Amino acid sequence: MIIVIQCRDKVGLVAAIASTLAKHLLNIVSMREHVDHNENVFFTRLDVEDGDTAGVEDSLRKILPDGAYIAVNPEPVKKVVVLATKEYHCLSDILIRNHFGTLGASVQCVIANHAKLQNICERFDIPFYHISHEGVAKAAFEEQVISAIKQYTPDYVVLAKYMRILSPRFVAEFPMQIINIHHSFLPAFIGANPYKQAFERGVKLIGATAHYVSDELDEGPIIAQQIVPVNHSYSWTDMVKAGQEVETAVLAKALKLVFEDRVFVHKNKTVVFG
Amino acid sequence: MIIVIQCRDKVGLVAAIASTLAKHLLNIVSMREHVDHNENVFFTRLDVEDGDTAGVEDSLRKILPDGAYIAVNPEPVKKVVVLATKEYHCLSDILIRNHFGTLGASVQCVIANHAKLQNICERFDIPFYHISHEGVAKAAFEEQVISAIKQYTPDYVVLAKYMRILSPRFVAEFPMQIINIHHSFLPAFIGANPYKQAFERGVKLIGATAHYVSDELDEGPIIAQQIVPVNHSYSWTDMVKAGQEVETAVLAKALKLVFEDRVFVHKNKTVVFG
Amino acid sequence: MIIVIQCRDKVGLVAAIASTLAKHLLNIVSMREHVDHNENVFFTRLDVEDGDTAGVEDSLRKILPDGAYIAVNPEPVKKVVVLATKEYHCLSDILIRNHFGTLGASVQCVIANHAKLQNICERFDIPFYHISHEGVAKAAFEEQVISAIKQYTPDYVVLAKYMRILSPRFVAEFPMQIINIHHSFLPAFIGANPYKQAFERGVKLIGATAHYVSDELDEGPIIAQQIVPVNHSYSWTDMVKAGQEVETAVLAKALKLVFEDRVFVHKNKTVVFG
Amino acid sequence: MIIVIQCRDKVGLVAAIASTLAKHLLNIVSMREHVDHNENVFFTRLDVEDGDTAGVEDSLRKILPDGAYIAVNPEPVKKVVVLATKEYHCLSDILIRNHFGTLGASVQCVIANHAKLQNICERFDIPFYHISHEGVAKAAFEEQVISAIKQYTPDYVVLAKYMRILSPRFVAEFPMQIINIHHSFLPAFIGANPYKQAFERGVKLIGATAHYVSDELDEGPIIAQQIVPVNHSYSWTDMVKAGQEVETAVLAKALKLVFEDRVFVHKNKTVVFG
Repeated sequence: MIIVIQCRDKVGLVAAIASTLAKHLLNIVSMREHVDHNENVFFTRLDVEDGDTAGVEDSLRKILPDGAYIAVNPEPVKKVVVLATKEYHCLSDILIRNHFGTLGASVQCVIANHAKLQNICERFDIPFYHISHEGVAKAAFEEQVISAIKQYTPDYVVLAKYMRILSPRFVAEFPMQIINIHHSFLPAFIGANPYKQAFERGVKLIGATAHYVSDELDEGPIIAQQIVPVNHSYSWTDMVKAGQEVETAVLAKALKLVFEDRVFVHKNKTVVFG
Repeated sequence: MIIVIQCRDKVGLVAAIASTLAKHLLNIVSMREHVDHNENVFFTRLDVEDGDTAGVEDSLRKILPDGAYIAVNPEPVKKVVVLATKEYHCLSDILIRNHFGTLGASVQCVIANHAKLQNICERFDIPFYHISHEGVAKAAFEEQVISAIKQYTPDYVVLAKYMRILSPRFVAEFPMQIINIHHSFLPAFIGANPYKQAFERGVKLIGATAHYVSDELDEGPIIAQQIVPVNHSYSWTDMVKAGQEVETAVLAKALKLVFEDRVFVHKNKTVVFG
Repeated sequence: MIIVIQCRDKVGLVAAIASTLAKHLLNIVSMREHVDHNENVFFTRLDVEDGDTAGVEDSLRKILPDGAYIAVNPEPVKKVVVLATKEYHCLSDILIRNHFGTLGASVQCVIANHAKLQNICERFDIPFYHISHEGVAKAAFEEQVISAIKQYTPDYVVLAKYMRILSPRFVAEFPMQIINIHHSFLPAFIGANPYKQAFERGVKLIGATAHYVSDELDEGPIIAQQIVPVNHSYSWTDMVKAGQEVETAVLAKALKLVFEDRVFVHKNKTVVFG
Repeated sequence: MIIVIQCRDKVGLVAAIASTLAKHLLNIVSMREHVDHNENVFFTRLDVEDGDTAGVEDSLRKILPDGAYIAVNPEPVKKVVVLATKEYHCLSDILIRNHFGTLGASVQCVIANHAKLQNICERFDIPFYHISHEGVAKAAFEEQVISAIKQYTPDYVVLAKYMRILSPRFVAEFPMQIINIHHSFLPAFIGANPYKQAFERGVKLIGATAHYVSDELDEGPIIAQQIVPVNHSYSWTDMVKAGQEVETAVLAKALKLVFEDRVFVHKNKTVVFG
């Protein structure tokens, strides 16, 4: 089973944690640990042989600095709500893994602001909510989406190419629970149609970034990134397709890391025990 | 031998070029060809069996649109001047390849605004010019550098971590002859010390871009790009080191492409027959 | 539209082909060409603006060496039969792309020697044939599979983790039409459970190879290969999972190349205009 | 400073080690740890704030199982002897890093069975021993090489494209101290000129493996691996060049890992805290 801890750093933390677990007769199989010395924060993920967890969290809290985050044996199958718009690639990949029990999570429902993806969800018996953003104020639209999400009390909300910018109020409802995927370029291209800009600049790589959503859509702590090579023979729609492939792969990788409790967040940065 | 052509596109160009070469009894070994339909530009690189090149350029010019760029059997070993500052990694890699005859170019001299790299150049018997930028106006400094370069009439000027921004006047002296390497990030970080910003953001990839220098230092047509994975255990100096490794590799790759006449430029974009 | 040609090489082929197309008023948009000088074979793939194809193949045949393979405007959506066993990853990826019309092919049916994947095929309305290999001689089993395939007259047979070794008689039924995916290691591991061997050796990379099936299951011309990094923290089942991810990606890439008529075969080797 | 431990696993090891270090007032900055449960072996690498190391090893030995390997504050700059033959690429990369103090080791001398690389060593003021294998029995030849190496009592012997197969007697002189680099393919090619075989098979990737030398030249525990893509346009000499690039990069990476005490060996497998 897994134990994760995030707290202020102090001398002797590893010894204190290990001793505490030993007193509970919990044998450490594997331990990953990191200290952010600039921020004075300690992160650890322990894989511990199964045993009696009664009282472990209390024992740990006694030897850890105030305000420590502790999770003893967190639920291995997370509850997830997926938000989408029209693009099928990330959603389908999630639905397949969910269907075959390899996602590390259980998809509760899919919510989309277009109806296009309803059919694929139905094929996998996943509840689908079509909540249109048209003809309704953004705040009201978001309330509907938030309500639909909340009835499932998910651990995470996954934006699988959900093309609406979230308001701060929406983000605040699910702090560090929303995971997004978006294309990335070197250099970055600001403004409309970055793929067209990338094409016109003749970039040789197209990337994707999976990240937690904090205040702004594309600016939260980064979980995973990857790139694919492209070249001058790619039209800009070819570049879009190449980007979709890498988006699918990076989101899948990021979700696996998150669902296995391998990702910690402090300020705008992650620690990933991959 | 190599023949490269860049010109306005028109119907039947491939047929006309191939027929012309056949009339000169030149057999095409391999042909790469690209048409930019947005810009209506035709690019080709032909590898042709050695033969009599007399009159070939004239024959080609007759069947090509006005203003065509044609190079028949361009010099396979380019003359190169390298500009550097203090960092050794890209320069040393170039010096090693130059020394063993695998650069595809001949390094004429190294010019640096610091003296630090003089020793490594001397070890390889490469003339080294220390032209300091201190205590002299930028224009006057650049004139010295331009003069030093020009006495070698190089085909290319390689910026091997040369940390001075070039003026438009400098760039205009060597149009599409200057090749630069710089770090790249997803997302991009503007302003001072991008590595520190990347560290604070917890990026998972660090990249490098080799490009021609046009108006601005980091904004010309891209020749090659690549990335390396990094993670939270990297300090920002570790990220700098990782960046140096990928800079070295990407610059080496870009120079090989350029020196083998595989790179074409139109507007702010390259066509690379890699 | 696409035109592909494979034939003995001779002087002036490019010129002759281009002239022939020009006579038919077919403008070449893009041309890829390769000569294997050891084998004296010429390969080309032309992207030609749409036009009248009447008589083009005959005209080409007149100017090409005897025995040339010529395909003018081959069917862009290939007919495909997929063979599988129990593993879902490659098959599901194909079904998803097929469903959304991005596979470049149309999946006619899935044939498996286990029933496990019937459900996922039914969800996508794809005919599924469960032909068990148990309690029946190999030759008889293969006859059943061949018959099931042949009723669809597919262009290609895709082995999506089909775990039965094909007899030479089976392979001969579909020459250079069968595409397989299998794991690959550096170094290679011979014999049972290569993942366990790879784990015990502590390999740092796991790869996958997509190839045409010729005589032996894993020995035909290679279409595409890729790897993923692994490390000591991977159990051998983790390595299997990592291998499945790269198998899915490499098979998808190979199929795209084949279905777009970008792959040529001569002897045991491919030419891929990717 | 670094502390590395490798020993039989038992319950409570992490707690015992951490407590021991705390008693010596040594604060753990970062800890990497792995248990091989099949082999029942425990590996850890601790980065500890500088402090008084007196008695630390003894204290650790008391709480660790018998036969533990313990290194407290190992020498950060290893002594290295490099063996080479004719190829310059790996050796030059090592010489450059050594020269600029970024190798993490100090090259004591270079020994080669050809004279070709003498010049490059002299340019870097590195002692060069030309010990020819011609006209002398293998055993006698190896004795000369062993004697030359031993006068420097190196921590590691690096085979930088040293093309002689080492006898078991040679290997036994430097157990788990010899590091080799060699090309790797998927699939593997046995016998003479694997690059030519790879070319004839049309492989799409070429790899390199850095490993400790145990009994056989290419069969010891793997430290690092990487690949580069190749394609049909590569001649087999192009493939050799591509292989040299990746060999250089992989050997550099492996040496960095080893010299920073990040690599552990148990049986034929490494644990790498990269």
